[in-house]
Order: sequence, then structure tokens, then C-alpha cells
Amino acid sequence: MVDSTFYEVRENVTLADVAKVTSATLTDENKKYEKIAHIATMASATQEDICFFYDRKKKENAAKIKAKACVTTEELKQFVPQNVIVLVSENPKVAFIKLNEYMYAQKKPSIGIDTTAKIAANAKIGQNCHIGANVVIEDNVEIGDNCIIEPNAVICHDCKIGQNCRIGSNTSIAYSIIGDNCYIYTGARIGFDGFGFQLMNYQHHRIPQLGRVIIGNDVEIGANACIDRGALDDTIIGDGCRIDNLVQIAHNDKLGRGCVVVAQVGIAGSCTLGDFVVLGGQVGLADHLNIGSGAQIAAQSGAMRDVEAGAVVMGSPCVPFKDFMRQVSFLQRNSKK
Amino acid sequence: MVDSTFYEVRENVTLADVAKVTSATLTDENKKYEKIAHIATMASATQEDICFFYDRKKKENAAKIKAKACVTTEELKQFVPQNVIVLVSENPKVAFIKLNEYMYAQKKPSIGIDTTAKIAANAKIGQNCHIGANVVIEDNVEIGDNCIIEPNAVICHDCKIGQNCRIGSNTSIAYSIIGDNCYIYTGARIGFDGFGFQLMNYQHHRIPQLGRVIIGNDVEIGANACIDRGALDDTIIGDGCRIDNLVQIAHNDKLGRGCVVVAQVGIAGSCTLGDFVVLGGQVGLADHLNIGSGAQIAAQSGAMRDVEAGAVVMGSPCVPFKDFMRQVSFLQRNSKK
Amino acid sequence: MVDSTFYEVRENVTLADVAKVTSATLTDENKKYEKIAHIATMASATQEDICFFYDRKKKENAAKIKAKACVTTEELKQFVPQNVIVLVSENPKVAFIKLNEYMYAQKKPSIGIDTTAKIAANAKIGQNCHIGANVVIEDNVEIGDNCIIEPNAVICHDCKIGQNCRIGSNTSIAYSIIGDNCYIYTGARIGFDGFGFQLMNYQHHRIPQLGRVIIGNDVEIGANACIDRGALDDTIIGDGCRIDNLVQIAHNDKLGRGCVVVAQVGIAGSCTLGDFVVLGGQVGLADHLNIGSGAQIAAQSGAMRDVEAGAVVMGSPCVPFKDFMRQVSFLQRNSKK
Repeated sequence: MVDSTFYEVRENVTLADVAKVTSATLTDENKKYEKIAHIATMASATQEDICFFYDRKKKENAAKIKAKACVTTEELKQFVPQNVIVLVSENPKVAFIKLNEYMYAQKKPSIGIDTTAKIAANAKIGQNCHIGANVVIEDNVEIGDNCIIEPNAVICHDCKIGQNCRIGSNTSIAYSIIGDNCYIYTGARIGFDGFGFQLMNYQHHRIPQLGRVIIGNDVEIGANACIDRGALDDTIIGDGCRIDNLVQIAHNDKLGRGCVVVAQVGIAGSCTLGDFVVLGGQVGLADHLNIGSGAQIAAQSGAMRDVEAGAVVMGSPCVPFKDFMRQVSFLQRNSKK
Repeated sequence: MVDSTFYEVRENVTLADVAKVTSATLTDENKKYEKIAHIATMASATQEDICFFYDRKKKENAAKIKAKACVTTEELKQFVPQNVIVLVSENPKVAFIKLNEYMYAQKKPSIGIDTTAKIAANAKIGQNCHIGANVVIEDNVEIGDNCIIEPNAVICHDCKIGQNCRIGSNTSIAYSIIGDNCYIYTGARIGFDGFGFQLMNYQHHRIPQLGRVIIGNDVEIGANACIDRGALDDTIIGDGCRIDNLVQIAHNDKLGRGCVVVAQVGIAGSCTLGDFVVLGGQVGLADHLNIGSGAQIAAQSGAMRDVEAGAVVMGSPCVPFKDFMRQVSFLQRNSKK
Repeated sequence: MVDSTFYEVRENVTLADVAKVTSATLTDENKKYEKIAHIATMASATQEDICFFYDRKKKENAAKIKAKACVTTEELKQFVPQNVIVLVSENPKVAFIKLNEYMYAQKKPSIGIDTTAKIAANAKIGQNCHIGANVVIEDNVEIGDNCIIEPNAVICHDCKIGQNCRIGSNTSIAYSIIGDNCYIYTGARIGFDGFGFQLMNYQHHRIPQLGRVIIGNDVEIGANACIDRGALDDTIIGDGCRIDNLVQIAHNDKLGRGCVVVAQVGIAGSCTLGDFVVLGGQVGLADHLNIGSGAQIAAQSGAMRDVEAGAVVMGSPCVPFKDFMRQVSFLQRNSKK
């Protein structure tokens, strides 16, 4: 149950509201004035709540639903107890998201610039922004309208941030150009030096890192994730990418649109990912690889070579998923002899 | 040798003091007024120091001890040189901890609220707290007695923190309820959005994350670790858990009591761990797994399926420890042919 | 092309300047007054740019160079198009670094102490330092000349930092002694408690962590990396080490000179690394290991035993590189039957 201490909760939501917001059909029109207090999981929903049922594998759990109402599909509604009011949806998961957005909201910080924020005289801050306590915004930074910059964030000189962005607390951003509607989570480190050096006389001499980080629109970068700027070229994160916590993206990497990079992935330098690539948690990519669009690399895998578009691979070094499973099974069978 | 620049060092500690503090027996009562200056390792202890010897495998090193005194067991004391004063303890490792606590202390920050801290008018701060420079404490936050909030930490609206807690510098905490006696290390990120989204028209649409993080009593969360809040349910960290640096714990994970999660572990969403589970460094768990109480998963292993209580497993995907060792040995033998 | 918004770009650089700075020989003296605007990659260089060609594998790309000038070797110059002005260098990669350093520079923050920095009265700050906004410097800290401490960094009591160091924004440093010419990146956590505890009556009792972190000269520690202080001994990072982002180094680890530790490596406690050890990304080392000088451990590998000096190993658990490749090939061949 969503805690109304932390979140704003809409009250007096009727099933008619639910039907409207989710484009679902209420199977019993007489119930349209019935109210629900909360969205809850199938297991925890009480007589005041609504739940969502869309995973056929959970049909046995469906029989135990105690909610007042349940949004499900035409096909699955047969598994819901008779006394639960059913709403039929073509896509209950999407309906779930829409009702969440309707019923709940995070509290937003107030518009304005905190008196303790330190903003360079020539920085440009858009309209309706919240700039939190102790934020540091250096020379020539430009921030678009409706942005939230949380406390103690540091935006270094010349960075540009688009509209409707949220920059988490204690985050550091340098040498970066960020599009609209991006959320950079707390503690992320964007645009610092790549890991480049040359051994000269038994000393690691630093190779100057002179590129930028270019982040498209609608991108999320997780907490404590690191994205190094390019060496000469730029590091590029395409529109719609979702980067999870503690990910490492090295200099000159280029991610296409909509890539999903799960927590603790490490991508070495100068890799190119196509669109909608999925990297499972803790995956590692060697440098200079091409990962084709739609490729999926399973968690903990390591790629030492290019991966073709659409391939599903696993293992370290990774191989096609079926081959990996065969290797696992071969080893288990044979090692026990 | 402990550096008295950084730590407070108790002076004039006699072997009688040591015996009392550690419940050890001084084998030569005539030596009870002898003083020791420091605790040191067996290898580095000098004629002014005391050392501890409890690992039988180090008996050859014991012969080289140069310390004034040594705490060891009845069984192991035979390996200590004659000129070293012996104290006999039933548990020298525990004795070691107790003497450390007696002889050394960290310097504590002074009680009070730094003038640069930004604390919401309706936040409640307990007695005897230290609130450091540039700390930001938002609306409705409650902090118990005797807490230390280090500089530049950010505690977001409505969070509750119990008594005797320490929140490290540059840490960010949101949507969280934290018990007593917890230590959240520097740079940890607690309570931010889980990694949840749904593909809709080739766009990753965010699934609202509306839960909390609930942390029990006597928990430690390491530096730069990330614990996402739940989506609808809560993320829960049980009493006495020890979470190391750079760990990722995803939305809806539930850890029982006393779990030990070593550095860089990644736990995907909706996993349930029993009590006293041990996850070695860099372990990865797939989502929705049940890991039974007392299970131990070796470093770098990956679990794709549930792990039974008490099991000891290794590998990616993990198998029982003995099976893993057999696989390793099988591969080594056969691949060389 | 380097973005002059972010970087200072030297103008009117002639090929004579390039020859002088890089110790290269201009093959056509008539071109010595020709100017170049930028350094660029072979692929992206335009008629105004200079590029560098030193990787024989790219000789086909060399034929497509559109740059005004190219620095290459005597041997490789034959692959460069006739209309590109060639400069011959004995080491074009070093030449590349030197020209980068000549043509480009980061903007430096101004010397001085920001009014919002909180510096203990008895701290000592060297000459020509920049201390950024909201920096916290506690009691007895000593910072050498020419240091840059970026905004929101926290330097805890008694730490010592040498000359010419740069401490990134939002970084936290405690119980540490740092040499000259070090760069600690944004968000790094240096000197906090190691992960040590003892189970007593079903509770994890903390083992006091009473050591320090000692960092040599010319060391870089990456963004969001964590280096725990020693328990009784110190954690030591030798001169010239390069530690990448998100690395975990545990209590009592001792790294020799010039070690290279790539992103997301985890080193458990009490390991000793020789000089110039290389750990690939996401490598894990068990505790108390000795890794000999010059050893190289490939990315994602895990070491459970000591590794000899000069060894090149791979796998988890790691084996000599050739053995690993044989294992991979054996598994692939045999599992498909």
C-alpha cells in the first residue's frame, strides 16, 4: 500500500474513474460509484484496494484475490473470484501504469532557487526550475525550463541541460550536453576523464581526454553510475536509453536509441551499441566492440567480440544462449562421472 | 601501529587492564604492571606492543613474534617464544576486538547543528546529534537521538532515522525508514527509483516507483552502495545486515536478519533472502529468487534459480560447491588433451 | 573535433609547430607555415585537421584520410594518400599526446578559497590552491601547494594531501595520507571503514578499523571508487597507480608501483600486488592473495589463489591464458555433440 506520508494520494477514486483512466471496461456498471483507496499487489490487496492480474502463471494466486476490484484481461477474468469486481483491459500492465500515474504522485520541490545555491553570473537558468540547497552551477551553464536540480549537485562549466530534466542530489556533471526529459540520478558522475594513458619511461602518462558526453532526450542514468567523456570523439547516449545504478560507460562509447543497461554493467572504451540493445546486470564488454541492434546479453556475461543484431548471448566469453545452456548441461553431466 | 594523529589512543594500559578487558588470564602475574603501547599484528608488533594469535595455520609465524605480550589460546601458547608474556583467552579474536575498543577510539564530531546545515522548520532532530556542514534535511524528516549526520548529506522529505545512527558525508536518502544503530556510509544512495519501465510504442515508459526502503536496527550499508525503493511494496533490509561498498539492491528485495552482502554484489528486483545469507563479492542474483536462510553463494557466482537454505553454491550459473569444484577439475583435466 | 566551448584551443598552430612539439619530421618543408585547426581521428579529420596513424591494422582506413596532415611512421607513411602532408615520427602515439597537450587545455578554476568553503581554523592550505564552494576541510588537515579541491568535497580530520593534487567534487576522504600529483575523481570514497566483523551471539559485531590509507605520488583514483582504510595496518596504493571508476579496494590491500586497476574490479582484504600488475575490468580477487609484479588478470576473471609475477591469467577461477582458451574451445567442441 502506497504510504501517504511520502506520496500524494488521490482520494475518492471510483471505478468509473479507473475505467476512464485505464481505458478498461467495467463489467458491472452498477459498481461504477464504488471507491478504491489504493492500488496493491494481488497478494496484499484488501477489500478497499484494486489490483492488476496479467500474468497467466499467477492464475492460482488470482483465486485468492481479496481486493474490491481487479483489472485483468477477457481471457484471465475467469480466474478471479466472483465477489471481486472485474474491469477488462486489453493491456492491464499499461492500465496499471496509467492508474498509478493518476492516483499517486511524488511531492515536487517548490519552484525557485535556494539562497545557498551558487550560480555563476553568466549561467542561464530556465523558467520554473527548482535549484536546491548548495547546488553549484559554474560558468556558462545553460539549464532549460522546468528542471529540478537537487541539493549539492555540481554542474561544471559550459554544460547544457535541456527542459524537464531532473538532476539528483550530490551528482557531478562536466563536459556534457544533455537533452530534454532526462533524469540523472543521485551520485551519478557524468563527463569526467576516461581511463587513458601511455606507458613512457615506466610511468603512466595521461592521454588528454578532450571530448564530451552527449545525452539524448528521455534518458535515465542510474545512481552512482559513471559515464566518462570521450578522448577526442564524444561519448554518446542515444534517446530513450535506460542506464541503471553503478554502471560504468567508458570514453567514446556510443549507445543507440532505447538501450537498456542493467546495474553494474561495465562497457570498455569505444564500443558501439545499436538501438534497443539489452545488457543484463554485471555484463562486461571489451573495448572497440560492435553490438548490433536488438542484441541481448545475459547477466554476468562477457563479450570479447562483436555481437550480431538480434543475437541472444550468454557466458564469459559469451556464446549464443542455446550453446551456453548446452555447455552448462554438458559440464554438469560429465563432471560427475 | 595505530596512528595517534587520527585516533584517540589510551595510554598506560597494563597487562592487568588487558586481562580484565579481554577476560584473558595473564600466565605470569608478576607482569601485571607491564605496559603496552599498541595492538599490532603478529608480524609488526614490537617490544612495546601486544599481538593476538588465534589462527593455527600461522604457528610458524608465532615463533617469530617480537611483541611484549601475546593473547592466544591454551592450545596455541606453546608456539609463542618464551620471552613473550602470554595471556590465555578462550576466544582471542573476541579479545582482540574488546581490547581494540578499549584502547582506541575515533574522534567524534561535536554535538550541535552546523550553521550551514539547511533543516526544514518542521523536521525533528533528536538530542545530542551532530549535523554537519551543508547537510540538507527536508520537510517532516525525523532523526532520533545521538545521530551523526556528516557533511553534505541529503535526507529527503518524510524520512525517519532512529537513534544512534551515522549517515556518511555526501550520502542521499529518500523514501526511507531507518532503525536504530545504523551506519549508512558515505555516498550511499538509499530509496531512489527502481529500474522499472514498460515498452510502449518503442519508448520505455517509466513504471511509477511508489514504495519505500525499510531498514531495521543495527544495519550497515557500505560506501556508494545503492538500495532502490520498492515499486508498490517496500524494499526491506532486516536487522543486523552488513552490506558492503558498491552493492546494488533493487526494488522490492527483502533481506532477512544478519545477511552479509560483500562488495559489488547485485541483487535484481523482488528477491527474498532468509536470515544470515552470505553473498560473496560480485555475486549476481536474477530477479524474483528465494535464497534460503544460511545459504552461502561464493564470490562472482550468479544465481538464476532459488537456492535452498544452508546450501553452499558457486559458479555462474551456480551449483553446489562440490559440483563446481568437480567441473573445474574436469575442465582442466580434459581440455589439455 | 575538440569543442572550444569546453576547452581552451590554441590557434594558428603551424606544421612547423607540430614538428617541433612532437619531434616529428615534416616531409615537405614547403608546408611548414600551413596551419591546422584541430587534432581529429583518422575517420573524422577534415581538410583543416591533423590526424595520427600508428596502428598497422588500420592501413585500409589510412587510404581514406581526408586530413590536411598526418603524423605517422616511416614505415606506415606509404599508406597515406598523396595529398595529405606527412610528418614522420618515431612514436606517433607519444606525438599525439604531446600535440594534445600543446593545443588543448582544460579551463582551470581560479585560485582562491570560496566563501562557502568551511575550513577548520587549524587546517593548513598551501599556496595557489583552489578550494571550491561548500568544500568541508576538518581539523588538522594539511593540503599542499597548487591543489584543486572541487565543490562539495569533504576532507576529514587529520588527512594530509600533497602538492598539485586534484580532489573531485562530492568526494569524501578520511584517515588518509596522499602524495603529490594525485587526482582523486568525483565521488571517490577514500579511507572509510573496512568490512570487518565477528559473529557473537548471532550478531555481527564490528571489528574496529584503525588503520589508514596511504597513497603515493602520481596516483589516480576513479570516480565513485572506494578504498577502505586498514584494520590495524594500512591500505597502501603505490606511486603511479591508475585505479578506474567504481573499483573496490578493501582493508589492508597493498598495491605496488604503477598498477592498473580497470573499472569495477573488487579486491578483497589483505591482498598484496607487486608492481605494474594489471587487473582487467570486473576482476575479483579473494582475500590474502599475492599477485606478483607484472601479472595480468583478464577482465571478469576471479583469482582464488596467488598469481605469479608475469603470469597472464583468465577465467573464474583463473588459469593461465592459454589454458583458459583451451577450456573454452574444448567446451564449445564437445557440448555440441
